[in-house]
Amino acid sequence: MRTLKLTIAYDGTDYAGWQRQVGISTIQDLLETALSEIENRAVTVYGAGRTDAGVHALGQVVSTKLSHTIKTSTLQRALNAKLPQDIRVLHIEEVVDSFHARYGACTKLYRYRLSTGLVANPLDQRYTWYIPKALDSIVMQKAALTLCGKHDFSAFQTSASETMSESTIRTILALNVSSESVPLWLMLKLASPCDVIVIDVIGDGFLRHMVRAIVGTLVEVGMGRRSVEDVAKILASRRRECAGPTAPAKGLFLMRVNYEGQRS
Amino acid sequence: MRTLKLTIAYDGTDYAGWQRQVGISTIQDLLETALSEIENRAVTVYGAGRTDAGVHALGQVVSTKLSHTIKTSTLQRALNAKLPQDIRVLHIEEVVDSFHARYGACTKLYRYRLSTGLVANPLDQRYTWYIPKALDSIVMQKAALTLCGKHDFSAFQTSASETMSESTIRTILALNVSSESVPLWLMLKLASPCDVIVIDVIGDGFLRHMVRAIVGTLVEVGMGRRSVEDVAKILASRRRECAGPTAPAKGLFLMRVNYEGQRS
Repeated sequence: MRTLKLTIAYDGTDYAGWQRQVGISTIQDLLETALSEIENRAVTVYGAGRTDAGVHALGQVVSTKLSHTIKTSTLQRALNAKLPQDIRVLHIEEVVDSFHARYGACTKLYRYRLSTGLVANPLDQRYTWYIPKALDSIVMQKAALTLCGKHDFSAFQTSASETMSESTIRTILALNVSSESVPLWLMLKLASPCDVIVIDVIGDGFLRHMVRAIVGTLVEVGMGRRSVEDVAKILASRRRECAGPTAPAKGLFLMRVNYEGQRS
Repeated sequence: MRTLKLTIAYDGTDYAGWQRQVGISTIQDLLETALSEIENRAVTVYGAGRTDAGVHALGQVVSTKLSHTIKTSTLQRALNAKLPQDIRVLHIEEVVDSFHARYGACTKLYRYRLSTGLVANPLDQRYTWYIPKALDSIVMQKAALTLCGKHDFSAFQTSASETMSESTIRTILALNVSSESVPLWLMLKLASPCDVIVIDVIGDGFLRHMVRAIVGTLVEVGMGRRSVEDVAKILASRRRECAGPTAPAKGLFLMRVNYEGQRS
């Protein structure tokens, strides 16, 4: 059996998320079906990030075992021919037998895209959370820094009853708030009606809805509804009801998964 | 009566184009309905470009007459509240009575986005025509130059029986083929699986499907199926069947409309 590492991208809008579920269309499901047709037996795949319904990915990593001797480039073409157009296999490589996309992942980079201002870009509505107010991204960045490091992130996970995680301790290595330039509006010689704020989070792992709860809380800080000190208190409280709302799925992207010993 | 100039943007995917049609959802239709509700009588709007079904706009210009004294900023908010999220009013200003968005337009800029290479970006599929082959954009640019200037563009319009244009003479002021940088793939440290080629056309007017027929022809040049000299012959033939196919609507954007005396 060969062990393969696949890098895939998808528009999550029309899917019930990554993980296989009975009777619902998921990314894992479609990928397993396509691989099973090629391998001629049931194939299981493991995704580094179990993205929720509506969440997108540009660098999801998947591992699987195949006995078929098909070349990786041919396999990539065959899978892309079988998969819907909103799911694409970007790269396939053969890796050591011990490779596991989920258990082997050291860190992941998630990106959240917010748009603010007078008018939302109608061509970006599937990929941003639009907030019709100005946000103070400087104070959001300050609040973000209080979340960096190794902490108990209970306050930022989905209600505990739904989750199976034993530990709620995670490490955030970086949490950056920045602006995406929108050259489009400059070109049209219009005053920019919207700004895109990008929140990049690198962590060793994430609780369910953790990134989206962090974003929801940072947005409240950006609006002036909460202070930087409040965020430290929310973290210390370990109570989900203290934090802000869960930001919508459509603004979230799994960008990259890093593994031990990887050139980077 | 006040004369208003509206700049609007839309994702054309789900619409039957700009122009009002009985029983079908069009942009003009939705805009007139929203304005009529505010004005309390039937309002007509004129769009600078009558974009086809599936074509997008980032800088469509619309003129209309209103007796209501509503402030332009309030009107913009009211319209954006009434319109679907994939149609947005970017700007409204009061202009001289003689202003007419369509008849007053001197030039328009249309942009066409093509993507090429091994894998299409699944998050860009609504806004590009994906061609799974490399295209020679240098030779495409050479062919594009033969189309610049004042010519009879009969070879690049939709079959004559469908059109009402008296004259088929138009002037193309610029036709540029360039690359859009895709920093995403660099960031993911993957060999770029796709390249986006942008074709910008500025003209004093366009026949029906003219931009898309030009793009379809330039793509054949980029693939090596036709030469630069062939394009000059196609233009001279004035016969639609000589040119390449009509490129899909989804890659086309009305970017900007220019008027006499406009600061630019």
